[in-house]
Amino acid sequence: MNAEIIAVGSELLLGQITNTNARFLSQHLAEIGVNIYYHTVVGDNEQRLEEAVKLAQKRADLIIFSGGLGPTKDDLTKETIARLIGTTLEYNEEALVSIQAYFDKTGRVMTENNKKQALVIKDSKVLANDNGMAPGMFAKSDGKYYMLLPGPPREMQPMFLNYGRPEILNVMEKVERIESRVLRFFGIGESALETEIDDILIKQTNPTIAPLAGDGEVTLRITAKHESPEEAVRMIQQAEDEILERVGHYFYGYGETTIAAELAGRLKEKQLTIAAAESLTGGLFLGELTAIPGMSAHIKGGVVCYTNEVKEHVVGVKKETLTKYGAISRECAKELAEKIRQLCGSDIGIGFTGVAGPAGLEGHEPGTVYLAIAAEGQETIVHPLKMAGSRDGVRKRSVRYGCHYLLQLLS
Amino acid sequence: MNAEIIAVGSELLLGQITNTNARFLSQHLAEIGVNIYYHTVVGDNEQRLEEAVKLAQKRADLIIFSGGLGPTKDDLTKETIARLIGTTLEYNEEALVSIQAYFDKTGRVMTENNKKQALVIKDSKVLANDNGMAPGMFAKSDGKYYMLLPGPPREMQPMFLNYGRPEILNVMEKVERIESRVLRFFGIGESALETEIDDILIKQTNPTIAPLAGDGEVTLRITAKHESPEEAVRMIQQAEDEILERVGHYFYGYGETTIAAELAGRLKEKQLTIAAAESLTGGLFLGELTAIPGMSAHIKGGVVCYTNEVKEHVVGVKKETLTKYGAISRECAKELAEKIRQLCGSDIGIGFTGVAGPAGLEGHEPGTVYLAIAAEGQETIVHPLKMAGSRDGVRKRSVRYGCHYLLQLLS
Repeated sequence: MNAEIIAVGSELLLGQITNTNARFLSQHLAEIGVNIYYHTVVGDNEQRLEEAVKLAQKRADLIIFSGGLGPTKDDLTKETIARLIGTTLEYNEEALVSIQAYFDKTGRVMTENNKKQALVIKDSKVLANDNGMAPGMFAKSDGKYYMLLPGPPREMQPMFLNYGRPEILNVMEKVERIESRVLRFFGIGESALETEIDDILIKQTNPTIAPLAGDGEVTLRITAKHESPEEAVRMIQQAEDEILERVGHYFYGYGETTIAAELAGRLKEKQLTIAAAESLTGGLFLGELTAIPGMSAHIKGGVVCYTNEVKEHVVGVKKETLTKYGAISRECAKELAEKIRQLCGSDIGIGFTGVAGPAGLEGHEPGTVYLAIAAEGQETIVHPLKMAGSRDGVRKRSVRYGCHYLLQLLS
Repeated sequence: MNAEIIAVGSELLLGQITNTNARFLSQHLAEIGVNIYYHTVVGDNEQRLEEAVKLAQKRADLIIFSGGLGPTKDDLTKETIARLIGTTLEYNEEALVSIQAYFDKTGRVMTENNKKQALVIKDSKVLANDNGMAPGMFAKSDGKYYMLLPGPPREMQPMFLNYGRPEILNVMEKVERIESRVLRFFGIGESALETEIDDILIKQTNPTIAPLAGDGEVTLRITAKHESPEEAVRMIQQAEDEILERVGHYFYGYGETTIAAELAGRLKEKQLTIAAAESLTGGLFLGELTAIPGMSAHIKGGVVCYTNEVKEHVVGVKKETLTKYGAISRECAKELAEKIRQLCGSDIGIGFTGVAGPAGLEGHEPGTVYLAIAAEGQETIVHPLKMAGSRDGVRKRSVRYGCHYLLQLLS
C-alpha cells in the first residue's frame, strides 16, 4: 500500500510552525509497511488543495490529511474532499454531543461556528477526537482511501494511533511487516563509513541500509520487509553483525539515543563517578551529562576553567606547566584530568583544553583540542584532536569525543 | 515571485527526521515577500524527484531544494536538476580545494566519493558552504530559478542567509520592500504580553505585529510594507516605541539574538568579569556564555557543584549552611554566588541551586530554584523561582532567568 501525506495550513507555508505531523505519521506508517513517496504541504486555499488531492489520487492508494478541520472559514479540508469524491457532509450526532460536552465542561458558551466541526463526510467512518473537538474521518471512494486528521499534534497523534491506524491495518490486503533498526556511529565520517561497507550497501535490497550524516555523527538505518516479524528481525540482525564486524569500533548505540546518554548509562551500570575540568567546552560536557535524570550519584561536578588563573588556583594545574607548555597542550590536559579527579574525589576525571575559534590562541589553530582521561590505577591518556568547522561545532564535537573515549575506556 | 520548496531525502519519508528546513526557508522567504504555495518532500529516487521538479516548474518561479548534495550514491539532486534543465555538472575548483583543505585539516584521508561534492551545475552561481563540504548552487534556465542547498540545517541555514538570500533579492523584479524587526521578551508569558498590548495589536494593519511564543520567551515581529524602506523603518520604530512604553521592562534584544548573547555584550561593554557556581544547571549557564566568541576576558570560570561535597570543598559553602538549610535554599544560593566570586576573583558571581526534576529533592518540588547574584559593593540578591515543565525546561529557563537578572543589574 502506498500513501501520501498532505498537511493543510497556511501557517506551515509561512514558516510559523514545523510540519511535525508528517514525521510522526511517516514513522508509524513505515512500521506497518505502508510506503510513503511524497509529503505535501498546501495552504488554506481550496483550489490548490484540490490540485494536491488530484495529484495524490494518481500516485497513492491512501491519502492522509492533517489540518483544516477546525471551526473557522479557512478550514476546508473535509468540504474539498467531499466534493472531489462526489459526496456531501452531514451532521454526526455523536460528534455534536461531544462538542457540546466540551463546552459544558469548560464552562464556555458554544458559538455557532463550532457546530461546523460535527459535520463529517457522508458514509465515512468517524474517528473520535479524545483531545479536542474536530472528529477525524476515514472514507473510501473509487478504490482510494482518505483519512482526515486534525492539525494539532496532541489531537492528531492519539487519534491516529487509537483509531486511524487500526482502520488502515484493517484494509491492508497483505500486511507486509517493515522492521527497522538504527545504528549510531561516532568518530567516522559518512563517506569513510560508506567506503568501509560499500559492498554490503550495494548488494542489499532487503534489508535496505541507508546511511545518514548529521551533527558530527553517522547513522545507518537497516530496514527489512517480511510477512513474519521474526524473520525481519533475523534479517536485520544478520546485516548488523556484518556491518559491525567492519566498523563496530565506531558504533555506540541504537535508535534515538545520544552518545552522552550512552555514557550516562555506562557510568550507572559500572557504578562509577566522574568529574570534568572544562576549558574550551566551558561547561558543555557536564551540561549534557547532567541533562540526564538520575545522574547525581555519578557526577561529582567539575570546574569551568576558562582562564589560566582558574586552571591554576582552582583546579590545581602547576604554574610551570602553563608557562612551559601553555594551556593548549597535552601536559595541561593531563593535569586537568588528574587534578579534577582528585579535587572532586571521583573515579574518573576528564580534562578539555583547546581552541574553539574563530581566532587562534597561543599560536594554535582553531580546532586544536587536547582531551585527557584519568582513572584509578591507569595511566592518564591524552587524545589530541584536530577539528574543522565553526566554534560551536568544535565545542560540541569535543564533548562527543570525550563521551566516545570514555565509552571506549568503560567497555 | 512564487517559490516552492522541495526537500529531498528518504529519511524524511521514513520519519527519521523532521523537515525543519522547509520552515526555516519559508520564514525567511516570507520576510522578503516571496510567496510559497507548496512544500514537497520526495525520497532519494530519481524518477520521483524528476516528477516533483516538473510539477514545481509549472507552478513556481523559484524552486528551492534542500538535501541530496552529499557524497554518497543516493545523493542525486544536482544530477537530476542538471539533466532536467539540459546542462551538465562540472568540477568547481574552489569547492575542490575547500574539500581537500577540510580533510587536510582534520588529518583524515579523503575518499574518492568526496570529490563528487565539488561537482556543480555548469554556469550556476556557487554558494559557499562555510560549515561543511557540499557547496550550494543557484541556476537559471528558461526563466525559472533553481537554488540547491545542503540538507543538514547547520550547513543550510548560514548558506541561505549569507549567500542564497542575496541572490534571490538580486533577481526579484519588483521588490515590494518588506521590512521587519523582531523584539524579544523574557519574563512575561505570551498571553500576558498580548493582554498588555491588545489594543495595539488590534488596530495595526501596516505594520502588522505578530506575537510568537517559544522556548520560555516571547517575540513580537513587526512587519511593515512600503515602497520606501526609510518609511517602513519609521513605521516600525513608531510601533516599537508604543509597545516598549508598555512592556519595555521585559524586552531584551532584537532579531536573532539570545539573552546570553545580550549579557555577553553587556559584560564586554562594562568591562566586567563573571564566574558561576552551578548546581541544577550543571554547566549550562557557562556553556551558553562561553559559546560566544571573545568572552575569555570576561568569563573567569566556575564550578559545577552537583554534589554537596563539591559545594563545600571546592566552592566553599559552609557545612552548617548545607546541614541547616539544605542545598536547595536561599542561603546556599547566596553563598554559592559569593564564594564563587571570591574563588575565581571575578567582579560578579552567580549561583544556581534547585530541583530540575523529574523527582523532588530534599522535600522540594521540581521547579524550585534559587538564583543568587553577588557583586562588588552590593548586597547579594537571591531570586527564588517556581517553574513548571520538564527537567530540560527548568534547567534552560533557570539559565535564562540568570541572564535576565544579570542584565537588569547591569542596565
